[in-house]
Amino acid sequence: MKTFNIAIIGCGTVGGGVAQILNEINLSLTEKAGRNIRLKKIIELNPSVAIERFGLDKDLFCGGGKNLTREETNKYIDEVLNDNDIDLVVETVGGISDFVYYLCVNICRSGKNLVTANKALLAERGKEIFEAAESKNVSVGFEAAVCGAIPIIKTIKESFTGDEIISVSGILNGTSNYILSRMFDDSLTFEDALKLAQEAGYAEADPTLDISGGDAAHKIIILMKLVFGIDVTMEEINYQGIQNITSTDMEYAKEIGARFKLICFSKKEGDNVFGGVCPMMVKNENLLSGVNGATNAVRTINRYSGKHVLIGAGAGSSETASSIVADIIFIARYNDLMIKTLPSKKIIFKGLNHFSFPYVISFETKDRPGITGLVTTEIGKQDVNIYTVTHNRHVQDKAMFSIETQPCTLSQIENAIVEIKKRDVLLGDPKIYPILY
Amino acid sequence: MKTFNIAIIGCGTVGGGVAQILNEINLSLTEKAGRNIRLKKIIELNPSVAIERFGLDKDLFCGGGKNLTREETNKYIDEVLNDNDIDLVVETVGGISDFVYYLCVNICRSGKNLVTANKALLAERGKEIFEAAESKNVSVGFEAAVCGAIPIIKTIKESFTGDEIISVSGILNGTSNYILSRMFDDSLTFEDALKLAQEAGYAEADPTLDISGGDAAHKIIILMKLVFGIDVTMEEINYQGIQNITSTDMEYAKEIGARFKLICFSKKEGDNVFGGVCPMMVKNENLLSGVNGATNAVRTINRYSGKHVLIGAGAGSSETASSIVADIIFIARYNDLMIKTLPSKKIIFKGLNHFSFPYVISFETKDRPGITGLVTTEIGKQDVNIYTVTHNRHVQDKAMFSIETQPCTLSQIENAIVEIKKRDVLLGDPKIYPILY
Repeated sequence: MKTFNIAIIGCGTVGGGVAQILNEINLSLTEKAGRNIRLKKIIELNPSVAIERFGLDKDLFCGGGKNLTREETNKYIDEVLNDNDIDLVVETVGGISDFVYYLCVNICRSGKNLVTANKALLAERGKEIFEAAESKNVSVGFEAAVCGAIPIIKTIKESFTGDEIISVSGILNGTSNYILSRMFDDSLTFEDALKLAQEAGYAEADPTLDISGGDAAHKIIILMKLVFGIDVTMEEINYQGIQNITSTDMEYAKEIGARFKLICFSKKEGDNVFGGVCPMMVKNENLLSGVNGATNAVRTINRYSGKHVLIGAGAGSSETASSIVADIIFIARYNDLMIKTLPSKKIIFKGLNHFSFPYVISFETKDRPGITGLVTTEIGKQDVNIYTVTHNRHVQDKAMFSIETQPCTLSQIENAIVEIKKRDVLLGDPKIYPILY
Repeated sequence: MKTFNIAIIGCGTVGGGVAQILNEINLSLTEKAGRNIRLKKIIELNPSVAIERFGLDKDLFCGGGKNLTREETNKYIDEVLNDNDIDLVVETVGGISDFVYYLCVNICRSGKNLVTANKALLAERGKEIFEAAESKNVSVGFEAAVCGAIPIIKTIKESFTGDEIISVSGILNGTSNYILSRMFDDSLTFEDALKLAQEAGYAEADPTLDISGGDAAHKIIILMKLVFGIDVTMEEINYQGIQNITSTDMEYAKEIGARFKLICFSKKEGDNVFGGVCPMMVKNENLLSGVNGATNAVRTINRYSGKHVLIGAGAGSSETASSIVADIIFIARYNDLMIKTLPSKKIIFKGLNHFSFPYVISFETKDRPGITGLVTTEIGKQDVNIYTVTHNRHVQDKAMFSIETQPCTLSQIENAIVEIKKRDVLLGDPKIYPILY
């Protein structure tokens, strides 16, 4: 049986988890791959933590377990890239620095398969990495880059091949889902829920990337590339986070039988692919509304097989590591090559503001008669049908109410709001959220 | 590009759907497979329905679209099996007759890959078919045999390979899930809900296999084979259907915040694999409880990546067909070979009555004081802890109540019931259902 040799570069939470799994269930991995699966080398600046936490042999580490300087690291990387024995390199350094970017490109250029969980890198600088891999006929495994343990990448690449995916959407960020769940279930403010998420280890000290929708945008960019063959940049995609959701917004969601979720959405209609990230009110009848806490979920709508939902852990050391190991086994077994989805020249990317959703618009207005009539009339003038108007809340000199529309575009609503603003009845900007059925 | 030639034997609802997809999206299938995907021949006794329903060219049919006699059918089958051009045969005849069994064995023995949706055949006579395939180094694709469109087979075989699956369970029969959902949501009797299921096309005229748990048992047998490498027969597995669930049972489920689901369950503990099919009260916090209507769902619990749930359509013409086509593409692309899971000699199969569940036991007793005490005392004597006792309902001369236990085995409960019966207070056999958290 031929041996399949692996190197890991970056042995932190995820890389260490990979090394641990490769050790712990090596026999069954070898059986599944039909080849001896062997972890040959690990490169890590500060190996001591990983050695202890993951029970790893220090001789696996380049430098024998000592801390490495940058120069030593670079020397060992060169050794790995020039080692004809090594079939596959796992990149678990993270980040989108030039260092990591060139590392990944060079792994591929040296004719080695690459497996990575680096969603930011693939979303922002992935094109050149995939091209390098294609030119050398090697594989890039990135199951772990989208929703950790959920096997959505292989499901799209290997299971939905007898079908056409029309839409791929979901809850792709665990931190924001945890925060929204606590806000909804325990009536917490955003700030208090964020603090809890940080205490529970679900949010970083600097949570910006998670709560701003940026991390979620990375993932939907990768999914849109895989499903529709289009390259969308972070500049082109519109993403919105959860920072501005208030307890009042939560109440409006409850009133219409929905829960707030940070939704990554994409859908193909004709030659257009609509995509983006935005908090939505997800109706209870949609299975995504029942996915709470730090759990992730992906929903696809397929031409022949209808709706699918995959639910699982979106992050975590061993969870993400198990996805990386699955990629290793798949490449060892099948010598998997990227699907060369030829991007149809005709396909045009459009932001979610061009897509027709039903919306909830919530207003804070002066407290005087006639305002509901005025607001609904202006909305009607933009050809937007109103589905329902909630009862008015009167707080001090303020009236608060929300309107649920039939499907329309955001610009129709914005046009109406421009007109309403001229009438001097609003006490602030209305909030606008799409509804997902 | 080399051509990959396919024959379909049996062109009814599913086989016709396969032919339709192979025609409609042929270009994209060829792109994904890296080989020209070509439907070369169809064998069907009465082709006219399929020709019209699926828009198929009559020249694809052996006999040019005419009805075939049995003799002609056999002659054409021989032709297909001897046609060196044909790489793969789709068996969509169905049933477990000797005819279909030998057909599948002979497809493999003739060195052709086999794809089938025939769960009954694989569960009851699969061993010899897989052996025939292994001896000729060909593949058996059976994604469509378990839960139609849900890609659970490939997820287990290709995505959870960096992990160890500890438990695989789920709602694997859409008909019974539809019936239970209508009973629960619309307070219907079993008989009325069954009638609705038949009218809606979710249940056959003879619904026995679905409502008895037999169909579900076929599927969990296939999953246990794949995940744990054990061969369990229909005689060994204990399966129970939904025929005896009453409105009162539904009420007890509601009281503990649960819904009734026909659950296929299997779990490995040490050297034992526990498995079976049985209606359970699934707690609302379990995602399976939110899977209603004819939808199916599979849940796995994995050593490294925790809980996963896959939800989708469990049946339907194009849904099942799309899974078959995905198998075709996978085999064409990777020349996939069966995982040769060597059954560990040590693994022992055990029925669910040996597994510790929390249970709900519901009693109908004489209406007199002291009975709750008597019943709970006898249960306690069997070392079963009681979690809660519902309030007593008094109907005419009858008292009705239910007891929720801490985890225990069925035999502990049955022992208690033997003792209780001696005391002449019961008005019928108590009903016993496991609870799934």
